[in-house]
Amino acid sequence: MSHVRVHNFSVSLDGFAAGEGQTLEAPFGHAQGRLVEWFFGTRTFRSMNGEPGGSAGVDDAFASNWGPGIGAEIMGRNKFGPQRGPWTDEEWKGWWGDNPVFHTPVFVLTHHPRPTLEMEGGTTFHFIDATPAQALEAAREAAGGLDVRIGGGVETIREFLAADVIDHLHLVLVPIVLGRGEQLWSGIEDLEARFDVESVSSPSGVTHLTFTRKGR
Amino acid sequence: MSHVRVHNFSVSLDGFAAGEGQTLEAPFGHAQGRLVEWFFGTRTFRSMNGEPGGSAGVDDAFASNWGPGIGAEIMGRNKFGPQRGPWTDEEWKGWWGDNPVFHTPVFVLTHHPRPTLEMEGGTTFHFIDATPAQALEAAREAAGGLDVRIGGGVETIREFLAADVIDHLHLVLVPIVLGRGEQLWSGIEDLEARFDVESVSSPSGVTHLTFTRKGR
Repeated sequence: MSHVRVHNFSVSLDGFAAGEGQTLEAPFGHAQGRLVEWFFGTRTFRSMNGEPGGSAGVDDAFASNWGPGIGAEIMGRNKFGPQRGPWTDEEWKGWWGDNPVFHTPVFVLTHHPRPTLEMEGGTTFHFIDATPAQALEAAREAAGGLDVRIGGGVETIREFLAADVIDHLHLVLVPIVLGRGEQLWSGIEDLEARFDVESVSSPSGVTHLTFTRKGR
Repeated sequence: MSHVRVHNFSVSLDGFAAGEGQTLEAPFGHAQGRLVEWFFGTRTFRSMNGEPGGSAGVDDAFASNWGPGIGAEIMGRNKFGPQRGPWTDEEWKGWWGDNPVFHTPVFVLTHHPRPTLEMEGGTTFHFIDATPAQALEAAREAAGGLDVRIGGGVETIREFLAADVIDHLHLVLVPIVLGRGEQLWSGIEDLEARFDVESVSSPSGVTHLTFTRKGR
C-alpha cells in the first residue's frame, strides 16, 4: 500500500508555516531561518549538502525519515521558486542545484506548465496543472508502488489535508510566535479525529508531532 | 520580588484557548473538555475536588505548580461566570462552590463592579474595572509580597501578555485543531524574544511549554 507522507514540516505556535514577504533573497520571509534551524543542525541536512557533522539525536531521527520508501514528491510552485504568475523564462531550475536532493520524480503544481526538467541524480521535475487527486494519481504511478511525499509549501499541505489524502504527517512545532505569514490551519478542524497523534520534545526546543491515520 | 505567573493554560495547535459558544451548560463551548482532559487526570485536580487518585507524572508536576507562592489571582469576568453585560442579580458566586480553590484574594476584571464576595477558605472576590497595570497594583498589594497569578480567560491572558507584565507563562499545547473559538495569539509577535523557552512532552499527549522572562 502506497502511503502519502509529509515530513519535517515546521509550524510556529501561532500556526504559521512560512513568514511574510518571501523573495529570492529571503526565501522564508520575515521568519528568516527560525522555522528550520532545528533541521539545519542535523546530520541529515548536512549530508544532503555534502557536509560532515551535525546532530544525531531525535531531530535527526525525524529528519532522516524523510527519504526512505519515497518514490515521488508533489510540491507547490511556491516551493519550487520565488516566481509568481507566467514564467518569464525557463532558466530557473529550483533552489537545489544541478543534482537536487530528491532523486525521484517531482511533480510541481502550477497553473503555468512548462517542459519537464531532467536533472542529475534521478530528479525529474514535471510541471502539472492538477487537483490534489489528479496529482496524486500521477505521482503514485511514477512512484512504482513506493510512497508519495507532499513536500509543501503551506498552501499545498493545507490543500492535501483538506482533501483528506494524507496518511502520515510529521509537524515540527517551533516555539516562536511569528504573528504573520502563511497559516497552516485555516479551514481545518478536528484533524485529530482521523489520526493517532504522538508528541516528543527535543533538547533543541522544538516538539515533533506525528499524525498517523487511524487503521494504517 | 513578586512575579506574575500563568499556569496550566491550554491551547490548541491552531492557537485557540477556548471553544466557540460558551454557556452555563457548555463552559468550554464546542471544545468540550478536550483542552483540559490532561488536567482532569492529575492528582492535583482531583485533590482540589476532594477526590483521591490521579496521575503523578509530568502533567501533575506542572499542575501542582499552580499554587505555591501565589498571594492573589487576577481573572477576567468570563472566567468567573457565563454572564455578559450588567449583572441582573448577584446570586452567581463563581463556578467553585462555597469554598473556592483559590484561598487568596481574587480580582475579577469587569466593566460592571459589584460588592466584594467573601467566601469560605480565604477566597475573596473583588470586582474591579481596571487596566492590567491597575489590577496588578491592587493584586500585588493584596498578595503581600507573594506572586500574582493571571488566571485567564483567553482575553485576559492576551491583554497581560500584550502589556508585557508576565514573568512566567506555562502553556499546555493540546494536539487538537479546534478550528474556531478564542485565539490566544492575535496581536502577539516574537514572544520568544523576551523569554527563555522550554518544551517537554507528556505521555498523555500534551506538550508543556514554559516561558521564563529573561533575567528572572
